[in-house]
Amino acid sequence: MNSPLRGDQYFLALALEQARIGWEEGGVPIGAALVHDGDVLAVGRNRRVQMDSAIRHGETDCIERAGRLPASVYRKSVLYTTLSPCFMCAGTALLYEIPRIVVGENRSFETSESLLREHGVQVDVVDNVECVELMERMLAERPSLWFEDIGEDA
Amino acid sequence: MNSPLRGDQYFLALALEQARIGWEEGGVPIGAALVHDGDVLAVGRNRRVQMDSAIRHGETDCIERAGRLPASVYRKSVLYTTLSPCFMCAGTALLYEIPRIVVGENRSFETSESLLREHGVQVDVVDNVECVELMERMLAERPSLWFEDIGEDA
Repeated sequence: MNSPLRGDQYFLALALEQARIGWEEGGVPIGAALVHDGDVLAVGRNRRVQMDSAIRHGETDCIERAGRLPASVYRKSVLYTTLSPCFMCAGTALLYEIPRIVVGENRSFETSESLLREHGVQVDVVDNVECVELMERMLAERPSLWFEDIGEDA
Repeated sequence: MNSPLRGDQYFLALALEQARIGWEEGGVPIGAALVHDGDVLAVGRNRRVQMDSAIRHGETDCIERAGRLPASVYRKSVLYTTLSPCFMCAGTALLYEIPRIVVGENRSFETSESLLREHGVQVDVVDNVECVELMERMLAERPSLWFEDIGEDA
């Protein structure tokens, strides 16, 4: 059992910290954390800029950093992400049958939540104001990088 | 326009070559190629074993190796893969709006084709005997690695 001090707010804060680091690095400020039974398996952040990567979104970077895990671990894990997942990241969660995703906010972007729920994933959107503000800043200051990240023309 | 010598069979053969290399490396024998207007942007292969990776499937490895591309390039590209894509790889194709996927075979595994088609992706399954044989060998000789790769218990 998680203690009250290590509930959703705590784990989302870890994801948000990753997002802020990514912003300071000049990248896309989206972070994630993968948590199993109250233990943090990994944190990650979007590294499009940092690694010149087309596949390292916050969630996929986090899952990559968690390493090769047994199916049974993913199936009891929670994925925390500062922004509603794109189809790639949602698909990764479906591949590994991660049963719950906690989303910092979905005002800036939302594309996969109905797909996830159709497949039985519990998607909890907490509408965190710090997540919203970080993405507002991203859209205002680095719009072309943002559009690149979601496969849109700038 | 592609010449007859550089049509689907040619590009799928590149993906199959990658799959065979992956098999020889001790990995999961699935390969891919990303082709834009007849030009091969990248080839890739599953590198779960080779890179200890949870996200480097054939298709995602190929897309990663193609580098950061403008949205307009993905939207005129064809993704060739020796095996029907998992949800992660299908989601990656949806993120970047890749309009066509040529699938070597879907007898060993099929999970995302209806999702892709619902989103307007043209999915052409060619049922290539060499792709089938390679996956049959995989399932017979390295079953636990295969189950790990698709998020199932061995």
